[in-house]
This record gives sequence, structure tokens and C-alpha cells, in this order.
Amino acid sequence: MKNISFCDVEFEGGFWKSRYDLNAEVSLQSVYKRFEESDRFNGLRFKEGAKVDLFYDSDVAKWIEAVSYLIEKRGGYEEEQKVIDGLADAMEKHRLKSGYINSYFLQKEPQNLFTRRQDHELYCAGHLIEAAIAYRKATGKEKFYRIVSDYVDCIERAFITEKTAKFTTCGHEEIELALLKLYEYTSERKYLDMAMFFLNERGTKEESEYEFVNAKHDQSNAPVRALKEAEGHAVRATYLYTGMSDAAYLTGDQSLLTACRTLFDDIVGKKMYITGGIGSSRVGEAFTVAYDLPDLEAYSESCAAIGLLLFALSMQRHGRNARYGDVIERVMYNNLLSSTSLNGREFFYENPLEIHLASVDKQTSIAPQARTALPIVHRLEVFGCSCCPPNINRIFARIGDVFFSEDEEELTVNQFADLTMKNEKTELTMKADFARDGKVELKLKNNRYKKIFIRKPIWCEACVTTGKTEGDYIVFEGIGETFSTDIDFCMKPYFAECNPQVRDNCGRVALCYGPTVYCLEGADNPWPLNSLRVKTDSRIEKAVLADEGHFYALIAEGMRDLPFDGLYRKAEDRREKVQLKFRPYWTFANREVCDMAVWIRRD
Amino acid sequence: MKNISFCDVEFEGGFWKSRYDLNAEVSLQSVYKRFEESDRFNGLRFKEGAKVDLFYDSDVAKWIEAVSYLIEKRGGYEEEQKVIDGLADAMEKHRLKSGYINSYFLQKEPQNLFTRRQDHELYCAGHLIEAAIAYRKATGKEKFYRIVSDYVDCIERAFITEKTAKFTTCGHEEIELALLKLYEYTSERKYLDMAMFFLNERGTKEESEYEFVNAKHDQSNAPVRALKEAEGHAVRATYLYTGMSDAAYLTGDQSLLTACRTLFDDIVGKKMYITGGIGSSRVGEAFTVAYDLPDLEAYSESCAAIGLLLFALSMQRHGRNARYGDVIERVMYNNLLSSTSLNGREFFYENPLEIHLASVDKQTSIAPQARTALPIVHRLEVFGCSCCPPNINRIFARIGDVFFSEDEEELTVNQFADLTMKNEKTELTMKADFARDGKVELKLKNNRYKKIFIRKPIWCEACVTTGKTEGDYIVFEGIGETFSTDIDFCMKPYFAECNPQVRDNCGRVALCYGPTVYCLEGADNPWPLNSLRVKTDSRIEKAVLADEGHFYALIAEGMRDLPFDGLYRKAEDRREKVQLKFRPYWTFANREVCDMAVWIRRD
Repeated sequence: MKNISFCDVEFEGGFWKSRYDLNAEVSLQSVYKRFEESDRFNGLRFKEGAKVDLFYDSDVAKWIEAVSYLIEKRGGYEEEQKVIDGLADAMEKHRLKSGYINSYFLQKEPQNLFTRRQDHELYCAGHLIEAAIAYRKATGKEKFYRIVSDYVDCIERAFITEKTAKFTTCGHEEIELALLKLYEYTSERKYLDMAMFFLNERGTKEESEYEFVNAKHDQSNAPVRALKEAEGHAVRATYLYTGMSDAAYLTGDQSLLTACRTLFDDIVGKKMYITGGIGSSRVGEAFTVAYDLPDLEAYSESCAAIGLLLFALSMQRHGRNARYGDVIERVMYNNLLSSTSLNGREFFYENPLEIHLASVDKQTSIAPQARTALPIVHRLEVFGCSCCPPNINRIFARIGDVFFSEDEEELTVNQFADLTMKNEKTELTMKADFARDGKVELKLKNNRYKKIFIRKPIWCEACVTTGKTEGDYIVFEGIGETFSTDIDFCMKPYFAECNPQVRDNCGRVALCYGPTVYCLEGADNPWPLNSLRVKTDSRIEKAVLADEGHFYALIAEGMRDLPFDGLYRKAEDRREKVQLKFRPYWTFANREVCDMAVWIRRD
Repeated sequence: MKNISFCDVEFEGGFWKSRYDLNAEVSLQSVYKRFEESDRFNGLRFKEGAKVDLFYDSDVAKWIEAVSYLIEKRGGYEEEQKVIDGLADAMEKHRLKSGYINSYFLQKEPQNLFTRRQDHELYCAGHLIEAAIAYRKATGKEKFYRIVSDYVDCIERAFITEKTAKFTTCGHEEIELALLKLYEYTSERKYLDMAMFFLNERGTKEESEYEFVNAKHDQSNAPVRALKEAEGHAVRATYLYTGMSDAAYLTGDQSLLTACRTLFDDIVGKKMYITGGIGSSRVGEAFTVAYDLPDLEAYSESCAAIGLLLFALSMQRHGRNARYGDVIERVMYNNLLSSTSLNGREFFYENPLEIHLASVDKQTSIAPQARTALPIVHRLEVFGCSCCPPNINRIFARIGDVFFSEDEEELTVNQFADLTMKNEKTELTMKADFARDGKVELKLKNNRYKKIFIRKPIWCEACVTTGKTEGDYIVFEGIGETFSTDIDFCMKPYFAECNPQVRDNCGRVALCYGPTVYCLEGADNPWPLNSLRVKTDSRIEKAVLADEGHFYALIAEGMRDLPFDGLYRKAEDRREKVQLKFRPYWTFANREVCDMAVWIRRD
């Protein structure tokens, strides 16, 4: 199986086109502006006195990758190309003869190259590799690519041939998947060998760690094939797992694939928020134990959701399995979307499932200095550690990657949107608006695929189709040069419940509509949100969502526990009927700062 | 009004005698042993090389105070007296000519006396004052008292007459209430003046603070009469408020009394756990905002509950008002009792309302080093900061103080137990077992009180009595030389609910029986406790509580949400009936380490 590239996919209208364009025309520029202001570009320009930091090169590289994907689809971006070419000139001038290039170490600690495994050098290198491939593919320009490929050779010598580096594997995974991408791009065996070296060495010996975390933090607690549970820093973890899955795909390594399946099961079965968020702990930005999914304290970093999407996308290549598409859909419509404001300019680092402003007041009441650990209540344009915004840029720019995969004469439709897809085997037109209905129209012409598999979403209980159902797919066989079909997945609002092992969600439900998880905001529901209960047998009305016309608001009947004076009294059950106004989770925190909740007490 | 001293009260059997004796015969010795092992006594012995710490003198002083109260009631304690007399000898030898005595500063920083307001010097001095009064009263011995009263004179010069001290008010209140106690004991005006100086100066100017907290931490954010909300460190706060209330009582200062009433209202109406615990935040060990009462993260320090009890006991002197007795009862039967293990040897520093072991696993899964902030799951014999154990010792030793107050010819019965009380006005015998029933028998002989007020507990809905009801009291007038009455407060198990402003308790109930709050423990209920619901219309059965014969276990009907595979599914309502086995909250964590919950979802 292979995933069909975003290069072949064109959004033709509707919601996903609007978000794709917003990223291309607003978010990318917003990140650029803030990155200039915060000296991130100046670091790689080796500008005298620029503030540099360990992870700045990766921030810039992800932005370059995003620009490249957009150039590939839209052309243009001349100003951005000038910025990138200027960076390449500066990098060429300032890199070492060995090919070493890292803006922090060259300017701040040139004596300490490759000495500290937690200092992100190979992580930055990995992002430079992804950026270099994308930029060369999009523009044909060689310089940036050559600088990076020289750096890869430098890394090979330092870590493998000459072993001058003071550590073996980087404390933040990324280079593994990047080297595999480079191998896929060039077919040069040396890149595969390097990737396998880093994968195979991880967890085989004790290496220095951060003081405040254990070896699980960077998945170095066991050799990769022996990993059984998703643990440690969630972004590190999913980047590693993606590399492992890619390696298994490219080499046929079954033990790697088995480990990937076990890890994916562990995430999806025990450690994933209903929004597709992962990494429930702010401390360590980490996975914790099974069923630990607190809503208020949810860390659920935007980059981690992206990591999960990448992991699922890679796993999708190992064979048709709807669960990967289900997880990608969950991430796309919830945690990925929530990462960005409706205006496209601001971003969430963490994506909580509950906002309770009194919990913020609580901390500031004790000490203003406690602010560093405050729950986030609105999106920001840039962060001190600003990995998420450019990651969001690049993932929206390549979101077309998630829709189709193919295997010889079989086409699989994994996701749905208004789009066309054209490759050497078909010209496909799809109409689908999963924000508002569950109907899909599919038309093919000049088609040479013989069989089409269409993923039936996990929330679909019954569907109207002329195709036959095979497991989680609707299948059409013996397709000719043209083909068309309409499918209705009969999307309707429903309440989801959570495994009662999850302490925080017992006795609660989350309102969903197709792939979209809904929430209550204080702005629409002016009561303590936890004093509300929703009637799960309520008739649910659709209403206009003023600030995002592609989605509906939903209105359900509920009850409100009536307040009383004092703290305690003999239990009564005094309540009144209220109308509860739900909106898509991902659109929260776009108006006033207010409370928010996904999981609502069921009546 | 005045509270009748524990000196006049004798427990004659039943539960409170058992706990009083356990403290006198086990807990006191357990603390002594651990304090010797941890060098706390050696500091005040000025033993070469002893480990000293800023607050060690206060730990030892509270233990001396406890011993003194026990000598007063029981005589004896010869070994303990030797220890105390030895300390007095050492203190006399090592104190400065000025009278200054503090084991930490004299041994570690003799150049820095009275320079840092957060370093507990006057806090330690306050506890030495309380101890000195108690020891002299109990034994008639003068030396320790003289050393301490010389130290008080030294403090007076440094802070008031000569103003050589580098700060004005101590960062941890205690000396205020201690000086007022000294004034009540000696009738010497200078002690009242000193107390009023420290009370009146607090919050009138900016003084240096800890970096991690604000001025509210030690209630220095406003002059004491302008304080409107209970804020900051809960022990500091309640010790201050107790001093304010005592000062108002002794001087008739109405503005101080008004502030005390406002602060008491704020605590009881918005910031007190159902167990009588206060201070919901581990950070700052502090009060936070109104209605912030999380169960799992409840800090609810044992010393803070004691502080609230002392505050209520002081407020009780301002006039008959049942709410103070209600709060004292709540603290006594719940947070105060929970502070100590059933065997009397171990203590809780914090007293959470929920234990969820997975939340501990969660933290240790990320990093073993995260342990410092772990929720407590069992009691310990000693702590690094071990203020609570000796505070528990002294409060149990004087628990007889809470039962009666008097005003000329009126006797008020505030609390209930099997006891006798004999003073110059009466000889009273009471039979009452509020752990198991709500019946009170009262007999008086040689009586000269004319009127008796008996507090009707807040949980009592109806009572059987020949007395008349006046507000929250049952009143008997025209009492003669002998008197007897039986009252039945018709105690039965009931479910309490919490104000819906408290996020964590919405949709939940707490089972109570008279003054006792109950809980579920995992040891008796082998399911995730949050997956359980209790039927509030359930018949509640009493059962034997194996490890505490004075209390019942309670059994109620409940439902258990059935587990399922995976994390999410369309909401169903699959559950099964279960029997829920409740035990008194205060007895939790006396068997295996397991989950515990007070607030249970209501069915």
C-alpha cells in the first residue's frame, strides 16, 4: 500500500479548502512574522547578537517545509523563497568544513558539538532534512539540499564511522523518520542504514538523561522492538513510532511492525483523548498510565496530535485497516483543528478538554509567580518553545496526504472532502461535507483502478450505498473507466461515553456529530458547567454557528442543579430545565475567555 | 462567655476516652521517639553537631504543651518531665544575656537574630510561651517559664521599645495568640500590649516575603481589621484569626470581632471541606478562591483543621452561637480524627478526600523524582516538617476544652461524650455516643446553674426532648440543685450534597451519620470508585466495623458502571447492582494502600 501524495489532491471548496487556504494565506505569515520578531531566522542567518536557542533550527525548518509544500501546490511564495535562499547562503558560509550546521552550537558552544544527547542537535537535523527534501522537490533549487545532505554525511561520520560523538541516540527523536524519508526520496542505502542504526541503538544502553525525567521520556528504556507501552514525551514517542513504522514498511522488518501495532493499540485503547489528543501530563509533556485522561489538566499538545496523525498515516501503508483512518479523522476534526484560532493567527500549544477559570484564579490567588504552570485559556501567536505553530503550518500544507491510499489496482478512500484527485490511474471528484452531513458523492473518469474501498467511519451505524460492506469498508469491484456512486453514512448527533476506568469521565457523555466532538462554553451557557446535566434522550436541534459557517451548533435539553447558600446540606435534587448550546470542540476559546467542557454529566 | 477548661472534664469511657488515652499513651511517645531520632530535642539541648532547623523549637514546644496537659489531668510523666527539665537547664545555659533563645539561630546564625521575618523566630517563641504556661500550671516548676518570659521581654525590646529587629511582624503568626494567653494567665498588661502591637502592625506596610508567594500568604495584604476573605497559608491564617478573636474578647474591640466573623463566614460558607479540612492547595498550603475544594488534591493539613478548631473555640467565647460548635464537631469527628492512625502511632500531614492510586502511578511513571509532590496515601510517624504530630498531641490532650461554655448562671453544652464535668457550680455527668447514636443523658448534682443550653447539632432534623427549642439550642430553665434529662437527636444516616459551585462535587453525595462523614475504600469496594453510584433512596444498613468498635460500617445499595473494551463508544447505560460498603472517613488508610472517596456519584 502507499498513501497518495497531497500533490495529486486539490481541495475544490467547502471546509477543508477554507482551512487549507487559511493556513497558506494567514497562519504561515503569522508564524513568519513572530519568528522574525523572536530572532528564529536570524539565528540561522548567523546574525551577530541574534538570540539563539537549541530548537530554533527545527522551528525554521518546519516553516520551510510548509512553504515548500505550498509552493508545490500553488507556486509563488517569492518572498518566502528569498528568505529561504538567504538562509541557505548564510548556512553555506557559516557551516564547518565537516558539514556541521546548527545555529545554536556554532554560535554559543562550538566546542560542544555532539556532546549532549538532550540538546536537540539531531532533532534539528531531522527537520532540516525534511525541509531540504521538500524545498528541492518544490523548487528544484539545490543549495539548501546540498548543505543538509553534507550535514547528514557529517552526522554519519560522527555517530557511525568515526564515533566521535559523545552519545549514540538523540534525546528527541525525529532524525530517524527524516532519514527514512531521505532514503525514500533518493533510494540511497546509506540513509536507510543510518536510520536503522539510530533505531537499533536506542534503549540498548544507559545514556545521560534529564534530571527530572526517566529513560522512558525519550523511549530509551528498552530496545525499540521490546517497547510494549506508549510512554514518555508524546511527541518524541510518536515521531519514533512513525520512524519504526516507516522502517518496517521499507525493510519488511516484522518485529518492528509488531511493536508498532502494540504501541498503536496502547495509545488508541488506553491513552487517547476523544479529541485525538495524546500526552495527558504537562510534566514531561508525556503519556502516563493507562486510562489517565484528565480533562482539565489535559496537556494534549498540538505537536503530539500531529505525531499521532503521522504515525497512523505511516501505519496505513502496511495494509488496509480502517482504524488508522478513524484515528486520523479524529485528530483532523478535533485536536488538529483546535490548535489554530478561527482567524488563523493564533495557536494552542496544549489543547485541554476543559477550561475552568476558577482553577486559574486559584493559582494566581496564591502567587502571581505560579503563572508558569497555568492552564492555557486562549491561543497565542508564538511561544518560547514554539514547536507547534510551524508544525501546524506544515501539516495543513500536506493534509491532502491523508485522503487516499492505493495498492496496485485498488484505491482506498480514507477521508472525505470536496476535492479532486488526479494521478496516472484516475481522475476523481469527491463531494463530502463531514462537518454538516455524512453524504459522499464520488465520480471517477479515465479510471484504471479495478476496485475501490471506502472507509466506513467508526461512528457510522448504518449507511445507504449500492456497494457491499466488507468489514469497515464499502467496496465496489469491477470498476470501469468511469464510475460514480453516492453514499450516505447517515450522520446524526450522538452521545459518546468513556470507559469507566477513566476517573474523570465517569457518568459523563460527550456530544458528537460525525467526526466532530462538541463542547459547552460558558459564553453560551452561563452557569457552572459542572452543574449541568444533559439528557441523552433529548432531541438535538441543529442551529447556526455564527463564527464558522461550515459547522452547526447543536442544542440539547439539559438540567441545571440549582445553587444554594452555604456549602453543604442534606441531599435534595433541585434543578431546572435548561437549553444547552453546544459548539464544535475545535472552535472553543475564539470569543471571550470562558469556561469550556467536553464531557458533560448525563442526566 | 467562657469555655470551661479541660481541667474540669473527665472522659469516663466510650470513644473519646479511647482516643484521649491513645494520645496520652501511644501518640505522645511515638512523637517523642521520632523527635529524638530526628535531633529535634538535641537542638534545644544545644548538643554539639545536632541537626537544627528553623521550626524545631516549635515542634518540641508543642510536645511539651501536650505533656503538660496530660500531667495536669493524670499526673506522672516523670520521664518526660526529666526531658523537659533537661531542656530548660540547657536553654538557661545557652541563652543570650538578653534572654534570646532559639536553637537554630544561636547555633547556626547568631549574627542574624530577628533579621528575617519568614524564618519562624516569633512563631517558635509563641509555641514556647504556650508550652511554658502549660508546664508551669501543671508542675509548678519555674525555670522553663522564667526562661521563656525573659525571652518575651527580649522580644518586646527588640520589636517595640528599641526596634532593633529588622522586621515588624513574623511571617508565621502564633505569637499573637500566645501573648494573649500569657496575658490571660498573668493579667500583665504588657503582654496584651505586645499582642496588640503585632496584630495592629500586620499588613500596614510592605515587608519582605517568600519569593514564591504573595503577601496574602501570611495575611499581610491588609491591616487585620480590613481582612475580608480567608486567604493564604491556612495555618498562619487561623492562628492569626484566633489571636484576633482572643484580642477582641479581651479588649472588646468590635472592629476586630467584625473582621473575625466575616473571616469565619468566608471559611465555613466557601472554603471548608465537609470533613472540616481547610486549605485546599498544596502550593502555599493555602486557602485559594471561593468554592475551590478539589477532593483528590485536597491539602487539608492536620494543623489547619486544628487552627480552625481553635478559631471556632475562641469565637465561641463571644456569645452563644451554635455554628461554632457545629464546626468544632465537624473537625473533631473527621479531619482531626483522620490525622492519626487507628494504632495512634502515625499521622497525616495532609488529609485528602480522595485517594486514586493511579494518580500516584501517573506521576512516578514520568519520573521517580516527581515523588516530592505525590499525594499522601498512608500516614507516617514523622515528617521533615513535622508540625502536625505534636499539634495533634496537644489538641487531643486538651480536647476537653470544647465541651462546655458558661456565662454567669448559664451552662452551654457544646459537644457530647461520656464524661463528667465538675467545677465550682456543678457536677455533671453526660452519656452520649455520637459515633453510634444521637442520644444524650445529662445529670447534674450540686448544681448552681440556672439555665442550660444544649446545642442541637446541625444534622439533627427532629429531636425528642422535654426541653424547649430556642434557635439551635434546647433550653432548660429554672434548673435546681439536681437535674436530669434525656435527649434523642434522632441520628440516622443521610446523604449530604455540596453547593454546585464546587466543581468536583457536582452530582455527588457524601454519606454521613450524625457528625461522621463516611467514605468508600477500594479495600471494601473492589472497583474504580468513580464508576460507582449510590442510590440516595437506598435503605442503609449498619454493620460491624472490625477495626474500630465504637463506630459502625454502613452499607448502601449502589450501581456500578460496567467496564468495556476500548476508550469510547456510543453512550449506553450498562450497569449492575452492587453493595457499597462505607466506613468513617477518618478511619481510611489504616489497612492496605487503596483508593478512597468521600463524594460518590448519586444514582
